[in-house]
Amino acid sequence: MDNQGQLLVIGIGPGHRGGMTLDGMEALAASEVVIGYGPYLKQLGSLLQGKELMARGMRQELERCAEAIRLAKEGKVVALVSSGDAGIYGMAGPLWEMLLASGWREGDAPLVRVIPGVSAVSACSALVGAPLTHDFCTISLSDLLTPWDVICMRLEAAARADFVTALYNPRSRRRTQQLVDARLIFLQHRDPQTPVAIIRDGWRADQWVQLTDLVTFDVERVDMNTTLIIGNSRTFVQEGRMVTPRGYADKYGPLQQALEDEG
Amino acid sequence: MDNQGQLLVIGIGPGHRGGMTLDGMEALAASEVVIGYGPYLKQLGSLLQGKELMARGMRQELERCAEAIRLAKEGKVVALVSSGDAGIYGMAGPLWEMLLASGWREGDAPLVRVIPGVSAVSACSALVGAPLTHDFCTISLSDLLTPWDVICMRLEAAARADFVTALYNPRSRRRTQQLVDARLIFLQHRDPQTPVAIIRDGWRADQWVQLTDLVTFDVERVDMNTTLIIGNSRTFVQEGRMVTPRGYADKYGPLQQALEDEG
Repeated sequence: MDNQGQLLVIGIGPGHRGGMTLDGMEALAASEVVIGYGPYLKQLGSLLQGKELMARGMRQELERCAEAIRLAKEGKVVALVSSGDAGIYGMAGPLWEMLLASGWREGDAPLVRVIPGVSAVSACSALVGAPLTHDFCTISLSDLLTPWDVICMRLEAAARADFVTALYNPRSRRRTQQLVDARLIFLQHRDPQTPVAIIRDGWRADQWVQLTDLVTFDVERVDMNTTLIIGNSRTFVQEGRMVTPRGYADKYGPLQQALEDEG
Repeated sequence: MDNQGQLLVIGIGPGHRGGMTLDGMEALAASEVVIGYGPYLKQLGSLLQGKELMARGMRQELERCAEAIRLAKEGKVVALVSSGDAGIYGMAGPLWEMLLASGWREGDAPLVRVIPGVSAVSACSALVGAPLTHDFCTISLSDLLTPWDVICMRLEAAARADFVTALYNPRSRRRTQQLVDARLIFLQHRDPQTPVAIIRDGWRADQWVQLTDLVTFDVERVDMNTTLIIGNSRTFVQEGRMVTPRGYADKYGPLQQALEDEG
């Protein structure tokens, strides 16, 4: 087993080194080759010293997976890096799909490990308060790989069933209508003043955060590095924080009371 | 500002040290007092050396928040720890709710920071393959703070709109019927063979993982330390891995082809 190749699929977190896990750091240190989307490799900076690097373009996910599999089968320790968590719209999916399609069986080389990371939705949530404290869903607005009517069905369901909703890939230069339509679907079921957080380049140097609402938010401020979080019917904004109540106050009475009891 | 209290809400990840982030480690090291649910403090072990500890019971979330606020207002650096990500059914919610209810305003003491962590759903997903690679939702089956009809409405919506669905707090000793009902709701809309992953004590010493399906899974194997992940209509299991296709094969053809082109 000593010179068996390894394939380490690493979720590197939201965009700054402190958001990486110890497991992710260790796996990166152990790897000989690192494959990933160019800007993510750049983000890792000095952690990549002495390693063979393969930076690839944004839509080249399958090429990245194929390279990672090929090199790991040759016996190399290969890190395939993914922004946020590798399992949420990340590289773990296509990697497993391709490996299994190629006939890989448990026990075959390479050894595969998925190292989970802090997802974009968790990272963005922390920046604006606590919007995810109740049932939530994530929906990608990219119709590159998913029919738009499936996406609309999910938007409709999320809006109707009062899920807190995180929108991934909300808008790109060429794909601008989806977010406009998504807003309209939500407005059919939700109060126009439902809080919305817009987090662009969260945890990166250019971070831009805005708390707004469903009817007001400006789609032009949204790009492909943006996550939107739409609150549920009880989400509120106060002092620049967006909070979804878990329900303690319904059961135990006003929360400041617990604080006074404690004091 | 030097002796201003600080309140650090830390998501400590799934249950082993390697799942913590560098930011989480640093915040813990900087804290004087650490407050959390007893078993989570135990998990942190030697990281807590020399710190004042306040272990609290499972349902004492509000007491933990109140203590954390009180001590931070006295000028202490207080860590409030939360399993997984602090924002997903975690301590960031009640903490912000209580602080805002008490009249806290931006700029007031204490300084508050939420440090996101690897969520249970990401951590569990990594253990079983890549089940979350498409739109997903999380639903807590605990009706302690949420009316059961609201939970049912969300289960119904998730099942109908073909979300991958992670169930949190699926079952406790006293609360056994909810998971039975949740399964019935899903069976009304989904194939009985829809893959289900059951992950109990994920990333902990007693970890137990089972891949099964909607109609077969044994509710008796599920306890309050378990996360269930129900696939969508396209999720498959092969070689002990549960994978939800992102849609690459629909667009680009069979994935083994990309591997052959690369070779």
